[in-house]
Amino acid sequence: MPITIRALVCAAIALGASAPAAAQDAADPIVTQYRDVADRIIQTALADSSAWDRLARLTDAFGHRLSGSRSLEQAIDWVLAEMKKDGLDSPRTEPVKVPHWVRGVESAELVSPRHVALPMLGLGGSIGTPARGITAEVLVVSDFDELHARAGEAKGKIVLFDPEWKNYGETGRYRRVGAIAAAKAGAVALLIRSVGPYGIRTPHTGVMSYDSTVTRIPAAAITMEDAMMLHRMQDRGERVVVTLKMQAKTLPDAMSRNVMAEITGSEHPEEVVVLGGHIDSWDVGTGAMDDAGGVVVSWEAIRLIRRLGLKPKRTIRAVGWTNEENGLRGALAYRDARGAEVANHVMAIESDAGVFRPDGFNMTGSDSAVAIVRRVAALLASINADSISTPGGGADIGPLMERGVPGLGLDVDGERYFWYHHTPGDMVDKLDPADVARCVAAMAVMAYVIADLPERLPPTAVP
Amino acid sequence: MPITIRALVCAAIALGASAPAAAQDAADPIVTQYRDVADRIIQTALADSSAWDRLARLTDAFGHRLSGSRSLEQAIDWVLAEMKKDGLDSPRTEPVKVPHWVRGVESAELVSPRHVALPMLGLGGSIGTPARGITAEVLVVSDFDELHARAGEAKGKIVLFDPEWKNYGETGRYRRVGAIAAAKAGAVALLIRSVGPYGIRTPHTGVMSYDSTVTRIPAAAITMEDAMMLHRMQDRGERVVVTLKMQAKTLPDAMSRNVMAEITGSEHPEEVVVLGGHIDSWDVGTGAMDDAGGVVVSWEAIRLIRRLGLKPKRTIRAVGWTNEENGLRGALAYRDARGAEVANHVMAIESDAGVFRPDGFNMTGSDSAVAIVRRVAALLASINADSISTPGGGADIGPLMERGVPGLGLDVDGERYFWYHHTPGDMVDKLDPADVARCVAAMAVMAYVIADLPERLPPTAVP
Repeated sequence: MPITIRALVCAAIALGASAPAAAQDAADPIVTQYRDVADRIIQTALADSSAWDRLARLTDAFGHRLSGSRSLEQAIDWVLAEMKKDGLDSPRTEPVKVPHWVRGVESAELVSPRHVALPMLGLGGSIGTPARGITAEVLVVSDFDELHARAGEAKGKIVLFDPEWKNYGETGRYRRVGAIAAAKAGAVALLIRSVGPYGIRTPHTGVMSYDSTVTRIPAAAITMEDAMMLHRMQDRGERVVVTLKMQAKTLPDAMSRNVMAEITGSEHPEEVVVLGGHIDSWDVGTGAMDDAGGVVVSWEAIRLIRRLGLKPKRTIRAVGWTNEENGLRGALAYRDARGAEVANHVMAIESDAGVFRPDGFNMTGSDSAVAIVRRVAALLASINADSISTPGGGADIGPLMERGVPGLGLDVDGERYFWYHHTPGDMVDKLDPADVARCVAAMAVMAYVIADLPERLPPTAVP
Repeated sequence: MPITIRALVCAAIALGASAPAAAQDAADPIVTQYRDVADRIIQTALADSSAWDRLARLTDAFGHRLSGSRSLEQAIDWVLAEMKKDGLDSPRTEPVKVPHWVRGVESAELVSPRHVALPMLGLGGSIGTPARGITAEVLVVSDFDELHARAGEAKGKIVLFDPEWKNYGETGRYRRVGAIAAAKAGAVALLIRSVGPYGIRTPHTGVMSYDSTVTRIPAAAITMEDAMMLHRMQDRGERVVVTLKMQAKTLPDAMSRNVMAEITGSEHPEEVVVLGGHIDSWDVGTGAMDDAGGVVVSWEAIRLIRRLGLKPKRTIRAVGWTNEENGLRGALAYRDARGAEVANHVMAIESDAGVFRPDGFNMTGSDSAVAIVRRVAALLASINADSISTPGGGADIGPLMERGVPGLGLDVDGERYFWYHHTPGDMVDKLDPADVARCVAAMAVMAYVIADLPERLPPTAVP
């Protein structure tokens, strides 16, 4: 639906301009030069389900890929081996030291006003509880303001934040810094309502943080259903008591790797268009959309360019960054390993919002770069993936963007992404093979054309 | 959406008739006589969220209510006490002997091609496994036909049925009789893909059955995601092995109760319109829509009639039947306790499809009874709950319908009912207070008018 509306709006805007859209397109030398190759890329991508099949194989075979886990390293080994079989240039890994948090056995149980197990997930980075658990009365608050107003009641209690979903940035704050706020008020543990707009008794994990000024307290998410139930119980004047048990702990840093391969540029091999996603995931579900999908569509995009025998002027590199979820160490290591070569990065594209039906890209770059990318995106109109919004980018390309590399994030129909995000339900069946193929097409056309243009995309001014 | 379409279709049909719909309604003596009282009932029902609040209190306070559980009997005690406080006539319970199945600790683990826990729920009535569990290779089949064709491969294996969702009747067969089919083929345990159109790694329980001609084997449901994953693994030629552990067992029958109250008829107190739902539930979630909601809207309907001071000619009785889920013993006991008085039951109405936005009722009855109910339903047009489809009814009123009592089932927007059905996600937040109020209005108007008509509704011919 949003795509259709967007398409109608775009059509209306085009009709309002002085020349018909088709005539404008025809007059654009980028469109004239790349129309045929773009259509070939799109048609080839859409001809089969190879990208979805590869995503299913990866996620079925290795499962979750939390930083520090054996499954992450096995998955990286497999990607590397497959990249070699694909005949891509320079398949390799680069070492990255990553945090190593482990969940262990964990549980939450309501013990007053009645006994029932509460489905839960500890938050990434949390400390554990004593072996006997923490049993305490719960203070339910809707938001930070209410906690502040009732701080006098929080001492010795488990604080439960039960905010209504607004958006990931805003509602996610309770997960990211809730333990700090609760500890400041004297709480002994933190519970949050899972961060998402919808669930079927679905807990969501994700990273949390501590602050050196206050005590570290264990932190976990319960489901939206149970958070609301505990809130209703409190509103009725009932005493709500929970026992929280978590074995979570942080081990010494572990070794992981970024994994990558490329198509070497024919004229300017030193200039690079990089595209990718993160190969690590949370330790629930199989991280199919967060973010094996981003890795696979990037990798499939360059495999497709290679299969079609295309030889872009600049190098196109597909990367699976490690440790996006709880450290961003892969993205930082990628940048730091390149040193001055970062300036040779013409563009960075990330897919980390799920490989649902693509709408286009969100972008951060100079006005002139955005204008060029918009002209390239016109080549994706046939699959309704021609929208370019600003600003944009992504976490893994953030360290490059800070140094002036124009950054694009793949935009998709995100209606259900946060239903699955960081949950046991993040599995490949939620993704449509045709949508995944469209994502490959969008990534491949954008990367190929930008890598092949006569002039390199201008960098972003860095303050 | 279905409501709107239905309303448009109805409007089109009405317009196609010789007289305008409004004029027809005005000419109908039932509409003329009951329009004002129906509108008062509807307005009063829609004025607050008391029905939803009561449903939340019931389900929050007692949780699940599986037959044989203490929580079921505590919930029944509470309903009885509240019915007394409501000032309803003859609040009481009637004893029912019910099956007593207990789940115990249970788990399923994929052990080849990789190790991972599979979220699962044992099926109601299943036997357990030995304490060490059952570890066996899995044969995944899509349907009964495929099992039949591959029966030679099933011996000593765990059979997993992975059928695509069609509808509850058809797809539910794998849950109901899958263990018999698998045992006939020599399987040592049964797994099924959870019966539902959608999930977020959500297992669904529900009743299963054995057959005296074959060995009883343990039976459980895994999630749709995992069933599809195991199927993909098998399709790739991988050896799929699962360890299933279940402590499930059936204890001696326990005592439970049907709970009821009424508004005594002013002219024909012996003639009864009965309406209700089932007070028991599966032992996951809180059974808010399956079926505390049905009990509460029936009970709230008569409370509303009492609050408005209405005195119907016939008795209206609201019942919470026990043990619908795994025995139907409450429904049978209700009928058997009444003996010849069953013939005095003018109509039976059941709500057991979730108390979502009501569309009307589905009905089984004589043509003349259906015609009268359609005229009464016209009083619900203002809330778009005036559809009467045939046939219809429900499980708990089935034993009455068999004896000729016209039966109605409350029809609701069922789009998401089977997302939650028999899962941990069946909780009250999934229900909209305004929709629950509409269900109360529909039940109350239908029950009151049928109970007050000059002539009793004609019975159904019994073969």
